[in-house]
Amino acid sequence: MSPAATKPPASELIAAARRARDETIPVPYRLPKSFVVPQNATVILESSGLLTPEELKLVDLDATALAAAIKDGTYTSVQATTAYLKTASLAQQGTNCLVELFPEEALERAAALDAHQAAGKPLGALHGVPVSIKDHIDVEGHDSPSGFLSLVGKMMAATDANLVAVLRAAGAVFYCKTTNPQSLMHLETECYLGITTSPYNNNLTAGGSSGGEGALIGMKGSPLGVGTDIGGSVRSPAAACGIYSFKPSVGRVSFGGCVVPIAPAGCEAILGSHGPMGRSARDMELYMRIMAASEPWRVDPTLHVKPWREVTTTRKLRIGVLRDDGVVLPVAPIRRALETAVEKLKATGEFEIVEYKPLKSAENWDIISKLYWLDNGKMVYDHIAASGEPIVPLTDWIIQQAGGVDRTKEQAFEIVAKRDAFRAELARYWHEQNVDVVLSPVGPSPAPQHGTARYWNYTSYWNLANYPAAIFPTGLFVDPAVDKEDPEYTPRNEKDKYVRDTYDADVSIGAPLCLQVVGYLGYEEETLDAFKKIDAVVNA
Amino acid sequence: MSPAATKPPASELIAAARRARDETIPVPYRLPKSFVVPQNATVILESSGLLTPEELKLVDLDATALAAAIKDGTYTSVQATTAYLKTASLAQQGTNCLVELFPEEALERAAALDAHQAAGKPLGALHGVPVSIKDHIDVEGHDSPSGFLSLVGKMMAATDANLVAVLRAAGAVFYCKTTNPQSLMHLETECYLGITTSPYNNNLTAGGSSGGEGALIGMKGSPLGVGTDIGGSVRSPAAACGIYSFKPSVGRVSFGGCVVPIAPAGCEAILGSHGPMGRSARDMELYMRIMAASEPWRVDPTLHVKPWREVTTTRKLRIGVLRDDGVVLPVAPIRRALETAVEKLKATGEFEIVEYKPLKSAENWDIISKLYWLDNGKMVYDHIAASGEPIVPLTDWIIQQAGGVDRTKEQAFEIVAKRDAFRAELARYWHEQNVDVVLSPVGPSPAPQHGTARYWNYTSYWNLANYPAAIFPTGLFVDPAVDKEDPEYTPRNEKDKYVRDTYDADVSIGAPLCLQVVGYLGYEEETLDAFKKIDAVVNA
Repeated sequence: MSPAATKPPASELIAAARRARDETIPVPYRLPKSFVVPQNATVILESSGLLTPEELKLVDLDATALAAAIKDGTYTSVQATTAYLKTASLAQQGTNCLVELFPEEALERAAALDAHQAAGKPLGALHGVPVSIKDHIDVEGHDSPSGFLSLVGKMMAATDANLVAVLRAAGAVFYCKTTNPQSLMHLETECYLGITTSPYNNNLTAGGSSGGEGALIGMKGSPLGVGTDIGGSVRSPAAACGIYSFKPSVGRVSFGGCVVPIAPAGCEAILGSHGPMGRSARDMELYMRIMAASEPWRVDPTLHVKPWREVTTTRKLRIGVLRDDGVVLPVAPIRRALETAVEKLKATGEFEIVEYKPLKSAENWDIISKLYWLDNGKMVYDHIAASGEPIVPLTDWIIQQAGGVDRTKEQAFEIVAKRDAFRAELARYWHEQNVDVVLSPVGPSPAPQHGTARYWNYTSYWNLANYPAAIFPTGLFVDPAVDKEDPEYTPRNEKDKYVRDTYDADVSIGAPLCLQVVGYLGYEEETLDAFKKIDAVVNA
Repeated sequence: MSPAATKPPASELIAAARRARDETIPVPYRLPKSFVVPQNATVILESSGLLTPEELKLVDLDATALAAAIKDGTYTSVQATTAYLKTASLAQQGTNCLVELFPEEALERAAALDAHQAAGKPLGALHGVPVSIKDHIDVEGHDSPSGFLSLVGKMMAATDANLVAVLRAAGAVFYCKTTNPQSLMHLETECYLGITTSPYNNNLTAGGSSGGEGALIGMKGSPLGVGTDIGGSVRSPAAACGIYSFKPSVGRVSFGGCVVPIAPAGCEAILGSHGPMGRSARDMELYMRIMAASEPWRVDPTLHVKPWREVTTTRKLRIGVLRDDGVVLPVAPIRRALETAVEKLKATGEFEIVEYKPLKSAENWDIISKLYWLDNGKMVYDHIAASGEPIVPLTDWIIQQAGGVDRTKEQAFEIVAKRDAFRAELARYWHEQNVDVVLSPVGPSPAPQHGTARYWNYTSYWNLANYPAAIFPTGLFVDPAVDKEDPEYTPRNEKDKYVRDTYDADVSIGAPLCLQVVGYLGYEEETLDAFKKIDAVVNA
């Protein structure tokens, strides 16, 4: 036998990886084999009987409230961590959202933080608060296989990613890492660990690529998590799982220590940023304040030197409503959610509402999809080949969007120049519209059925632009009684048709409906100020 | 005859370009043929008899003082513009620093501004102040051949560069464009228009690539000018011509509308920034405040959203002294200037002075020289071939520094990744040293003899780092009586030897001695705050 022949087949490695992950769930928190997870997994928090009434109250708090409750002694960090170890265990069993749970380390840390507090020495704004982290972000002492079977066990982090170090210094308790898809580049989450599903409807994806975070937080398995976004990856899962998220502009938060095994170091054609995912609009700002206060530019020279600016706009905000990107018309429930929000905002008299027409939607995708894969996905295919794991169809699909070419340096420069020309044109256009923010769908449909999330433009558009964008749930859900598509509608093009062919109100029942608030490049403060105001009205 | 054969030879085109430029100097401001410009051209301001005593007083003011004097009615803009048209004409005849003078347009603008002021409607912080602009920065209605004969007459700017538009809106009067070298990439200034010389000693270069600005301002031919810097190009000429300059970090000021015909659009491996050149430390800050107040990020999406921060450090500043980069030891007068400044600073008791050892000087040049020419200088050679103009030896030299390779995309990524690793390592190192700023030479020698400026590392180091750096004159000049090199010194290496072989105190007599103040990446405010304090002590 040759040495190569001794390597176990991918199916064995996959089974072993899943088993190892499942075994990180403490035995007392495992559901009985007879327990059937319903289509809407969120109900198991109560139906499992695992949490005490007090714990059910605790996991309802956002991070701001939980931090305050720990600070004032209402809860200890050990209590909070215990409650979240339970809900995260249930979330895993309900949605398949975890790569690893590490209860012992977490409880030890929580106890140490409680001792600190008892000694009058709390660490920071997140003292004692559990925080969840997406797989490909390094947490010291934990593996970051980043969705590739070939990397399992080989990506043990020697140090924290920059953002993790900041959160740790602020008092966060890390207790789990969450799933991301093979290639990191799906707006769904499927990898060797299987498919992560939306907490509200297991017919549907949890979104991606930060789908593990989305499902976990949507299941109240975390008060605050961190994802990354280069095409919609904190926003699509927030929308699919009915939670909040925020993608800052690149340059504001450090990506250092995020494992990116899909593009060569030194390629800066299109960059991702990391961002918070959570339970309230104010938590998005809390997170950004913590990051800025750490002066991350002292560690990461790719960042802007930019303290958090105090922005509270007192004049009437001017909101541009983007109803349709001109390529794919959003399906009925998305239009309903947007229209409902607009009517609520208008009713207050506190906003100026105008229409915002899209600029160059199709061209945007043509540029960004090529920027993703200047090397035609070589690194992705190499990682997949190394283990022999099956290629998830969406992996092939997204790489093929770039045209199947390994580009030369000159071709790469040409596309980057198009990116810059687009950004310059959009800056002019945006200011001509004179809007503070744009209110828009997060995607053309609610959480897609598994394997069908193929239209990125409502989110990826703002990655090419590099504008900050925040997601909030509207409190509305897909209702087949009112959200059927018009059978007479004639699709505009293949993409429009595909979205309609793969959306079905009956299948998508109960899917949360979320919206997106976009601000100008680098205006994180202004964007979140408007975001909080809009969310307060829509969720009043 | 074939059409190609009808093209005039390069020598004729060069003669025509020089004649056309010379004819932009108003006849009354031309020196008589019998007038001999001395080695130290600065004396002709008085000896030419062209300026009135009042005008001689006016051109002694920095931009801040001139703006105030126009504001309070001491001078009109027409008076200021007239005085500067005279000094610029003399500067051209003394140092060959202009590409074009445009007196009619300038005087018309000045008169309009005077009328505005009379009507109580001054434009902004530079109302009525003449401002000079480097050739390759677009000024509406003027050519930007950028040092290439083949581009003469073909680069007529339809609109102002972003920075020019900001200065125009602030009330600046444009009246000339200044020379830059063939390829834009010498720390000297030689192109089809000839050689630009240091005002203080015509044996020596004016520095480069913003050498026209350096010589013009050194000759009091401009109160404030704008250059660009990707390897030392506002700093080398400031040092060679005894003036002030400031290179901000990339991301703070807009490069939009700077013509860069030497690298492909979309190549962002190493970027330049533009910066002010002038007559005082406070003018450097004035310029930066004007730029930031214009919110340039609304027009240029490559910029950081970063209002000017008010920084006045009251604690003791910690200054790191970089005496030697470890590769080329500065020659005697540079060591003298630095030591004199350090002694003055120590004497005040107001600064903490520590040694700052260089980190990876040689490696830095190895990286940045390759980043300059990922395509092996193809665009430069194409422009030169298009006209048949002679190749200036320094053009060949700097391109050859990159190793003579047209790199692949993968090779390019590798070097960019080295850049990022260097920046991350330097950030750690800098903070370990715990310095506010570094005080260092601007180069290993005073202004080099023509054709010999081959050691860039004292300036280019901070381009790869992307740290802000400011230059100030020390009030000292090369004095052969004290500035001879030790004949017993054994050079460390070929570069060290070359600098010594090409430096001669007798030849360099009277060359100004300047120093550099460097701050952390993106800390423009802190850097200029320290810079003003250091300059005030050294030039007390």
